[in-house]
Amino acid sequence: MSIILGIDPGSRITGYGIIEKKGRTFNYLGSGCIKTLAAGDDQSLRLQIIFAGVSELIIQYKPDLFAIEQVFMGQNPSGALKLGQARGAAMVAATNNNVPVAEYSARQIKQSVVGTGAADKTQVQHMVASILKLPGTPQADAADALAVAICHAHSYDSLAKMAGKATKTVRGRLR
Amino acid sequence: MSIILGIDPGSRITGYGIIEKKGRTFNYLGSGCIKTLAAGDDQSLRLQIIFAGVSELIIQYKPDLFAIEQVFMGQNPSGALKLGQARGAAMVAATNNNVPVAEYSARQIKQSVVGTGAADKTQVQHMVASILKLPGTPQADAADALAVAICHAHSYDSLAKMAGKATKTVRGRLR
Repeated sequence: MSIILGIDPGSRITGYGIIEKKGRTFNYLGSGCIKTLAAGDDQSLRLQIIFAGVSELIIQYKPDLFAIEQVFMGQNPSGALKLGQARGAAMVAATNNNVPVAEYSARQIKQSVVGTGAADKTQVQHMVASILKLPGTPQADAADALAVAICHAHSYDSLAKMAGKATKTVRGRLR
Repeated sequence: MSIILGIDPGSRITGYGIIEKKGRTFNYLGSGCIKTLAAGDDQSLRLQIIFAGVSELIIQYKPDLFAIEQVFMGQNPSGALKLGQARGAAMVAATNNNVPVAEYSARQIKQSVVGTGAADKTQVQHMVASILKLPGTPQADAADALAVAICHAHSYDSLAKMAGKATKTVRGRLR
């Protein structure tokens, strides 16, 4: 059994989702958003809200694993800097509590959850609700965070299987 | 008297400088670099090294103020994201220890330390050594961090003076 905390980072809204994996079954434990709007333009206060929020989730749910979405940065260095700061605050909350961090691209997450890297937001929300047997569709940021947690659970499984089958490693790769 | 921790953030090397301000006098307390090279490409480990390093400095020197360089991001969103993460980790170490964070642009720092926003690295290093009466020129990253601490001490003074002289504020500005 492992508990996975998924994070969809953002300078204004950071989505989170917590799932439990028992064998092949996923259980939904919780999800929601950390909103920093009350901090206005005070970047350091925003970061503190994210850091404190993620730290609280870790204390409450005691996750074994932490997964975060690798973000698409577009062409805007200023936006990338702010997003980087938000990611940094969230990741440090994990490492500071000794929870190992994994990163996945949006494409990997969609591939893992929907079966195609080109899936749209609605498909991700639908599949997250279906996999976790939720009564309704989760809010978009929470759904993305739950999706990265599911993706980590899947790839964690494949790695464990590969490790079980592997007989030797060559230059760090399993053979 | 106040103790100021200045930080020049970077994903690979984060410079730090600690000064003490007594009236009009500045005393050098310490400076150096937090290097994350041992973490290789593991971004979360790099961030943890920065967070732990800055937290340690705060515990050791108990600064009242924290100042960080606002970075020039150029045209590279990927570099801006990594730099943002490093800044986020450093800033969260400050806010998490209740040290207020101030940000200054490279131009503001050069203006404050050298007297011109167009000063080069060597001039900054020279003036930092002169203001703090150092026996030699500090290493570049440490000098930049000491410079942002000096800049914060200067502008903190001006703000205090303005506040003393001001009789009223209009739309949040002192008159």
